[in-house]
Formats: sequence, structure tokens, C-alpha cells
Amino acid sequence: MLKQWRSLLSRNLSSKTLLSCKWGDARNASCPRGFEPRAAFSTSIQDFAATGNSSANARVFAPYTIFKGKAALSVSPLLPTFSKINSGTGGLRIDRYGCLMLTLWPGFDRKYDWEKRQSFALSPTEVGSLISMGAHDASEFFHDPSMKSINAGQVSKKLYIKALDGDNGYMISLTVTNNIQKSIERLNVPVTTAEFAVLKTACSFALPHIIGWDWLTNQSHKGIEGSPSKVNPKKHLDLEWDR
Amino acid sequence: MLKQWRSLLSRNLSSKTLLSCKWGDARNASCPRGFEPRAAFSTSIQDFAATGNSSANARVFAPYTIFKGKAALSVSPLLPTFSKINSGTGGLRIDRYGCLMLTLWPGFDRKYDWEKRQSFALSPTEVGSLISMGAHDASEFFHDPSMKSINAGQVSKKLYIKALDGDNGYMISLTVTNNIQKSIERLNVPVTTAEFAVLKTACSFALPHIIGWDWLTNQSHKGIEGSPSKVNPKKHLDLEWDR
Amino acid sequence: MLKQWRSLLSRNLSSKTLLSCKWGDARNASCPRGFEPRAAFSTSIQDFAATGNSSANARVFAPYTIFKGKAALSVSPLLPTFSKINSGTGGLRIDRYGCLMLTLWPGFDRKYDWEKRQSFALSPTEVGSLISMGAHDASEFFHDPSMKSINAGQVSKKLYIKALDGDNGYMISLTVTNNIQKSIERLNVPVTTAEFAVLKTACSFALPHIIGWDWLTNQSHKGIEGSPSKVNPKKHLDLEWDR
Amino acid sequence: MLKQWRSLLSRNLSSKTLLSCKWGDARNASCPRGFEPRAAFSTSIQDFAATGNSSANARVFAPYTIFKGKAALSVSPLLPTFSKINSGTGGLRIDRYGCLMLTLWPGFDRKYDWEKRQSFALSPTEVGSLISMGAHDASEFFHDPSMKSINAGQVSKKLYIKALDGDNGYMISLTVTNNIQKSIERLNVPVTTAEFAVLKTACSFALPHIIGWDWLTNQSHKGIEGSPSKVNPKKHLDLEWDR
Repeated sequence: MLKQWRSLLSRNLSSKTLLSCKWGDARNASCPRGFEPRAAFSTSIQDFAATGNSSANARVFAPYTIFKGKAALSVSPLLPTFSKINSGTGGLRIDRYGCLMLTLWPGFDRKYDWEKRQSFALSPTEVGSLISMGAHDASEFFHDPSMKSINAGQVSKKLYIKALDGDNGYMISLTVTNNIQKSIERLNVPVTTAEFAVLKTACSFALPHIIGWDWLTNQSHKGIEGSPSKVNPKKHLDLEWDR
Repeated sequence: MLKQWRSLLSRNLSSKTLLSCKWGDARNASCPRGFEPRAAFSTSIQDFAATGNSSANARVFAPYTIFKGKAALSVSPLLPTFSKINSGTGGLRIDRYGCLMLTLWPGFDRKYDWEKRQSFALSPTEVGSLISMGAHDASEFFHDPSMKSINAGQVSKKLYIKALDGDNGYMISLTVTNNIQKSIERLNVPVTTAEFAVLKTACSFALPHIIGWDWLTNQSHKGIEGSPSKVNPKKHLDLEWDR
Repeated sequence: MLKQWRSLLSRNLSSKTLLSCKWGDARNASCPRGFEPRAAFSTSIQDFAATGNSSANARVFAPYTIFKGKAALSVSPLLPTFSKINSGTGGLRIDRYGCLMLTLWPGFDRKYDWEKRQSFALSPTEVGSLISMGAHDASEFFHDPSMKSINAGQVSKKLYIKALDGDNGYMISLTVTNNIQKSIERLNVPVTTAEFAVLKTACSFALPHIIGWDWLTNQSHKGIEGSPSKVNPKKHLDLEWDR
Repeated sequence: MLKQWRSLLSRNLSSKTLLSCKWGDARNASCPRGFEPRAAFSTSIQDFAATGNSSANARVFAPYTIFKGKAALSVSPLLPTFSKINSGTGGLRIDRYGCLMLTLWPGFDRKYDWEKRQSFALSPTEVGSLISMGAHDASEFFHDPSMKSINAGQVSKKLYIKALDGDNGYMISLTVTNNIQKSIERLNVPVTTAEFAVLKTACSFALPHIIGWDWLTNQSHKGIEGSPSKVNPKKHLDLEWDR
């Protein structure tokens, strides 16, 4: 149940090496029809919905997207999945955490190629690493799709987030290495301090949702309405002291 | 789809030049009837509602307003707009981000002239810049309504937010330059550290809403109720690894 | 409409004078029957409900209360009030902001006298001052119930919040001066760093609610359901540029 | 009413002694069937639900769990309980605060023994202490199940949270001392800076819920719908000034 993240290594770095890069503001970039992010993403959300959340409520696709000179970055939260504990009581338990899905895809001269996109699903703990990054920090995450299988190490992904010198924002780099095909793909998206502040605020907002704690909000709403006139005041302590 | 912000330039400044200004507390100012902010704003909200959110629920107008000696400042969030992806599935995609609408209007001797108001719509990234401002920072935003058209540069707006020396709060200045009419209008509203803390807290609260991420709260509520008893536990990784 | 706060003066102090005080942990204090905070407060909430929120949903009374050696402190949010803009559209505008109601009442030997309570309603800006206080800051608020009347200055209230030396928490002092009766009542409640962290977190959570911005959460939920398939994408800019 | 927390002593420490420890990443640990955390916890939630929240809505079990080399840590919020004030008005008052339930249980070689679990219920103030911890702080909490009874001191629990040197995260230690059986059980779980950031963000999100302030969100939603067209604008000040 808790094996869902294929992290080989996650660590915080404190080196201050400046990644050399240049970028322009390409937020007004035009994507070729059929390759714009929203169409492709909505397909993904639909797929996700078909397996995990097949209820009647509307699917919503609202990524936060940053277009820069050589690549674009899109961030979108995915909710956790639940399964019923017992058919009679209607209780639910979390099956797997949600994530923050980062997607990067290359572009040039304000044309972006969604077909060449690469994704990286940040686990709750990796989101915790991102939102606690200071102005001089760096974070590195490694994912291996074949971890613990005989194919381990064949393909790997590295996401590297690094503060740039002089409070000039952050560089977000995704590297996908295929040791069979001897190929390396790297996508770099520089983000400003302001854009990173949006990412941190939005990810902090999303974090309780992707670990499934937003039941608090909905539960209590109903709990108040259905609250009995008298409760057992020793219940919490019983939970702590009795086993 | 992502061309909605007419920003020509957004940058963070770190200079510490003190803007000279004086102000008094005019929070008890009386607006002439017909010019008070709530009436005019409610019209705007109504207009907005007529195009984007024509549902049956009540419109709510609740700006955070600061009255000072020479001008007043009002801040109010506007929600994003969505369009349906496919008529059958009921899915929604975000069409354009919401914003934090800043409105400044001049006043003297506790009488304020709403007719001379000037507005500035902060994009999500500009909100990110505002909420990450430290005690010695400054932010500057430029909007051109005719950007990329033949009229580019004729009229421009500049919003300047600057920390005042000695932890004495911030100065918020809006300058509207009309190169055709050779006119410059400038409105200055000094805000205290406490008022800026309200702005930062309220804007941080609003940010996930204006980028459309509040579907998380509502979605998950319904998702739990309609959750199936078994889900595909490899779906998230499929989203990351399969293309 | 905006005259609701009787503040004469609100300012941040940076002096580091240590208020001398001693306190014990009296959280298990027993109030005499009929004087316990919950009964009296629930009456207040009922009164408030009768004027402002007469809907059918349950009133909830959940103050955060701190009992100390010589006095107790209770903090409870009060929501803003709204009035309808036009009877036809169902729109609402905020009439007055909500507040954070602080109530202090004296006690000795773990017996507390609710009859001698004093209250202080923190405005949104005063809440902004509280939540932005650092480990060495102090805040002072003055309220005069008769401000701008002929009785101005007869009775005044001062709330003083000050960080104690050595990261030993904060002292919250409420002084009520009656110049007619020549009486001064002072109530001091020391709060630990942990208790102040609860206050700051809870007040930051409550702030968007007391300025009426929580319509964002509820509005968007309905807005998504009733969203049309196509919206006018230039509306936000129209709001900024057209007058 | 306010006697619910059996704290004998809560204090913040600022010593920087490094606890010596080693750990490996055991998040992929497999629990023996019948001992996995979700099954046992869901029973607890069911018990809690039976006494406090017997409404028809689904129970949700979503702990944030960290598996390490020698033990695992699970954190889950429990909501407050309410009772009706008067049968006629439908008002509710909080009976006891909720808590953040920490559960630690030992493991070796990626097998964990849920039967040997120990729990510690963090009160709102103790949560305030946790979320205000800096990179060099430590917090210590003592609970005695028999406090103020003749059995006081027979069994006690100590939770110790300490920042490790060099920004290497935190050590969370739970010690249960039984002076009758002359036994001491100690469970240590090292958490990374990223995991602690998740804990702080999730606990900050949960804090308003466990003190019962989330009625703000639900109340206002209904309050807006049922708002009258005119309210008494002096009500808040009446609450502050009239007694």
C-alpha cells in the first residue's frame, strides 16, 4: 500500500552553484492545434477519472502553466484514491496518496511540442521538500519506473530544483535517462521568484488534499449537523491510553 | 489561451529609496451618494456574473478597502472562468485565470471621488510577487491595454509597491500614462504593516481560487461519496511513465 | 459603512521592555455554575444570530480559551454581515466586517469570575497586526466607545500585546479606563509561544472569513456547476480598462 | 470542560544536543496481514464515530505515515465533539477539542508490529508548539493518564521532538514509562526536513478544524443564503461594550 513512490533518493542540497541559463518571457506562446496542453491534459484527467473517481460531478482541469523560452512547465494536483473499508459502514480508507504532477515540454520561438512532454509526479514528501525550500536551497528527486524489478536502472528521471544566485528565482530541470537507448532528454524551465511563490502557495494549499486530509472540512460540516446532544468526553484519551 | 495578461514587464526591485509621503487615517470617510464604492463595484460584479457565472447563487461583493488621506484602495478577487471540454462528460477546463482587482480613487478632506477611479488587475504571478515581498522589497508591474496592437504604448499603467523605511509599511502607487492626451494620473495609498499583512493573508487565501485549484475542495468531497470500492493502484505512475 | 472601528490609534512598538509577571497553568480551572464561559457566550452568539444570521442552520460556539493564574482569555471569530444589493438579483454586499472577539476575565485559585469579563473586538487590520508580530514585537490598540461623540474619552480600552524576553511567549493585557468613575480595570493573560502560535494560525485562518472573502470557496463551487460552455475572454481586461 | 489534556508539563527547549541515530528508508515496508495500520486504525475511527459523529456520511481514514528503519509514525487528526446548547435553537457548543493522534510502532527488517504501537494525542496547544518549531528547536510533552488521581505518576508518556544538527531533519521519540511494571518502552522515528514540512503544513491545516473553527466555512455559506436585507450595524460594538 505504501510502495507507490519509486524514489531512489531525495535530498536537499545547499550548494550555491549558479546554473547558466537565459530565458525570455514566452507566456504568450501559441501551441499548434492538437498539441495545446489543455486538450492532452484533459484526456489524462478523464483517464484518471475513469479509474478512480467515476462519480457524476464535473472534471476540472486547471493547471498552473509557465511558458519560457525553451520549454514550458505545467503543475496540476491529482487527488488520492480511496477504497471502502466495509460495505456496511460506508467507511473509506486512503489507497494511495495523490500527487503534484509536473509536466515539462520543449519549445522554440514560442512554439511548443506537447508530444515531447515529460512528466514527474511529486509525492507528498517531495512536495514538502519543495515548499520548504529557501532562497539558497536546491532539491533533487530521482524516480525509477522499474525500481526493485529486473529492469531497475534502465530508465530514470531526475528532477532538480535550484535557487539561482542573487534572488533571481529558480531553475527547474527534468532529466530522463534511457540507458538502453543511450538517450538523455533534458528540459529546463527557469521560474521567477514570483512564479515560485505561486507554486509554493498553491502546493501548500494542495498538500492536505493530496494526503486525503480534506475529509476534515467535509466531515465536520456533516458531523455538526448530525451531532448528538451528548458525547463520551473520555473517548480521545481512551484512544491514546487503551490498546 | 494564456495571453490574458498584458504585462510588458514585471520585476522585483531591491532598492531602498524612501518615497516621501504623509498620510492620515481617513477610514471614516464619507463618499457622496451614488459614488460610494459598493454600488459601483456591485455593478461590475453583476456584469462579470452575466458573462461568466450565470448560475442562480447569490453574487457577493466584499472588497477589502483602505481609506487614506489622499486616496482609497480597494482589493477584491475575481474568479477564473471555465468552459466545457466535451458536452457529454461534463468536464471543465479553465479558460482564463482570475485576478485580484485593485481599485484606487482620489479623495480630499474625507470625500472620495469614485468617478476618478483607476483599476489594476493583478495576475496570479503578480499576486505571487506581492505575497513574497519582504520588509525591504519593492515590486513593479506594467500593463498596456494595447500590447501587441498598433496602439501599443499609447496608454500604460504602472503599479508600484514599495516597503517604506523603518518598518513603516508600504506605499502602493498606480500611475496611468496617456501618451495621446499627454496626461499622467497618479494615485498613492500608503498602507501600514498591519494592513499589508491583511492583504498578504487574504491574497494567499485567494490565490488557489483564482488559478482554479479550489476544485480540489469541492471535487474531493464528491469524489469520496462516489468512490468505488476498488481502484487501479498503478494509475498515477502510468500517468508519469506512459505517454 | 466603513466607520465600524472605533480605533483612535493603532501602532506597532518595537521596545523590548519586559513586563514583570508570573503565571501558573490553570487550564483545569473550574468556573462557578452559571458563570462558565460557554453559557454566557452562547447567549451572545444567539443575540448575534438573531440580528445577522437568522437562517435555519445550527449556531456553533467554539472559542479557543486559555486559563492562566490570574485571568482567562477566550478568542472567538464573528462573521461579517451582509445586505442585499437589489431584491431581484439576489446579490449581497458586505455591511460590516466581522472581528475576532477577545474576552478576558479575572480569576484566582482556579476560580474565574465571568461577570467581570471585558471584551475587545479586533478589526481585520488589528488581526493583521497580531498575525504579523515577530518574536520581539509589541502591538497596542485603543478603542473608544464614544469616539467622535460628546462623550469621547470618558471610557477607553487599550489592548497591549507584547513579546516577552527570551522567547518566553507573550503578555496580553486589556486595560479599561473610566474617567467618570475614576476606575481602571486591568487584566493580564500571559500566553506561551505555543499558545500564540495557535492564535496566529487560527486568526490567519479566520481572517478571510471575517472580511467576507470566503464567498470564494462557496461561489466557485456553484460557479463550476453552472458554468456556461463559452465565456467572454476579454471581460477581466474590460473591468481593468473600461470605466 | 477544559480538563481534557493530561499535560503535566510542556516546554520548548533550545539545546542543540545531537541525538545519535541512523536510519534507512523503509517506506516500502510490508506489514504482516492483520497488523497493517489501516485495518487497526479504521477500527479506532469507527469507535470514535460511534460515540461522536453518528451521522450517515462516510468515515474517512487517511493518516500520514512515515516508515523508517526501526519504527513507523502515523499522524491522523481527530475532530472535536459538540453538544447541543438548547434543544429548541439547534445551537452547538464544543465539548472538547480534537487532536492530532500520533501513533508509533516498532519494526525491524521492514516488518512492523502494530500490536506494539504507542499513541500520543497532541492537544491544540501542543500542535501550536510543533508548527512553530524552528530548525534548531526541540519540544517535549508529558502526558499522565492518571493525573490528579491516586495513580498519578504510575504510567507516563513523553514525546520528544528535536531538530537534528546540520538541517538533517528531526527525531521524534515516544517514551512510555510504567513505574509499576518497571518497564520503559521507547520508539524513535527520524523524519527528514521534507517530511517535517508535510507534518507542519498538514497540522497547520488541521488546527482550525480541531479547535472547531471550521464552522466558519460552513456557517458563512449558509449565512449568506439566509441573510436578511438589513442588519443592526451596531451589534459587534454592542458585544464589545455592553455587558
